[in-house]
Amino acid sequence: MKWHITTIGLDADDTLWHNENLFEDHHQKYCELLSEYHDSKTVESVLYETEMRNLELFGYGIKGFTLSCIETAISLTNGEIKAEEIRRIIEHCRQMLLHPVELFEGVSDVLQTLSERFRLLLITKGDLRDQERKIAKSGIAHCFEHTEVVSDKTVEAYARILQRNQIPVEQFMMIGNSLKSDILPVLDLGGHGVHIPYRITWEHERIEAPPHEHDNFYQLESIRQLPDLIEAIVPSINA
Amino acid sequence: MKWHITTIGLDADDTLWHNENLFEDHHQKYCELLSEYHDSKTVESVLYETEMRNLELFGYGIKGFTLSCIETAISLTNGEIKAEEIRRIIEHCRQMLLHPVELFEGVSDVLQTLSERFRLLLITKGDLRDQERKIAKSGIAHCFEHTEVVSDKTVEAYARILQRNQIPVEQFMMIGNSLKSDILPVLDLGGHGVHIPYRITWEHERIEAPPHEHDNFYQLESIRQLPDLIEAIVPSINA
Repeated sequence: MKWHITTIGLDADDTLWHNENLFEDHHQKYCELLSEYHDSKTVESVLYETEMRNLELFGYGIKGFTLSCIETAISLTNGEIKAEEIRRIIEHCRQMLLHPVELFEGVSDVLQTLSERFRLLLITKGDLRDQERKIAKSGIAHCFEHTEVVSDKTVEAYARILQRNQIPVEQFMMIGNSLKSDILPVLDLGGHGVHIPYRITWEHERIEAPPHEHDNFYQLESIRQLPDLIEAIVPSINA
Repeated sequence: MKWHITTIGLDADDTLWHNENLFEDHHQKYCELLSEYHDSKTVESVLYETEMRNLELFGYGIKGFTLSCIETAISLTNGEIKAEEIRRIIEHCRQMLLHPVELFEGVSDVLQTLSERFRLLLITKGDLRDQERKIAKSGIAHCFEHTEVVSDKTVEAYARILQRNQIPVEQFMMIGNSLKSDILPVLDLGGHGVHIPYRITWEHERIEAPPHEHDNFYQLESIRQLPDLIEAIVPSINA
């Protein structure tokens, strides 16, 4: 099947650079901090409940996550946790925010190649400031026409981005590691989706099965395979 | 002087609805919470230092502010603050995020009138999720062509908004309560600015004196005066 694609949207966290591994590392430190009170499994499960309860209010991102960590720690220790331990939770947060951006191998070359032929948009969710900082530090900002930071990646959010940028949906392809946030809403609208799973998927982003039967859906193991896929499915008249 | 204006940008917090009063209220509760350790003046001053130190990393908004409050409380009490008191600080944060949007008197009518003649953009900074929630709750979202939430209101941020929306800067007028964030960057670019001060100005937003000598600068006491000002300075050929 050949498609006329003009614009490619790319997710950032865990699609272009590592992110979930920072949370994994934080979870480990957090469980250690609370290990005298509860086992890891209980800590993880109560933290996840708190996060989900706070998600609507706090949104995605490290600051809201940190507030959920503090709240959970107080509740799990019946208020016995020490201020010094809470200070350390905030310090972990700061370390996560300050962490260098680690691009996946091949990302720069792939984006350079794609940007010569397509409009590229970076489409990400979470803390505005944190995402902007990562994009600025990434060294690949120049490959993108611009960046859209949204509070959630819903069908409505994608529709707004497409409308604002005057992109016909059938000419739009989205690349990302989350079926739920990057792929399904775009397929729903009539666009194209390329799923590139990351080693870790946050529980909240997990869905049952990829929509393999969908005509506009593709799955890759690595972003390095993207130019070949596009070569195969987008006719070169696009060039 | 008559100007050809096509697009009006409006700030939201403390321009269309009350915001700084929520922080004022929070500061009061926060000082009470720490009153057994320090007087209000010390608490306020150390909190402000923490906020400024964290601003680059946390950005504007209630969640980053709350993390600064917790950090300051731990440091000001030499770690003696109780977990229950920290829980109350997070609870204040939640109350601020959940607070109803209180529009200034006349805002709905003014926006309705202006939207018949101009493209209106809502231009605000802070937490993306929190700003979106307030806009959704405000009941005036329909008056705006769309909303731009930026992490900081710099000259570059305004330039990007104008470019993305294809607005010639000399046709752009920005309305807001902060000279530093809403007015000066827009005047710098060659646009127009209408300053409407709020009862409280956050220390970080304070600047010495309004640029009264600037041809494109106006100051009003209330947003209700805006239609008359515009009637006077924008020729009706605009209509």
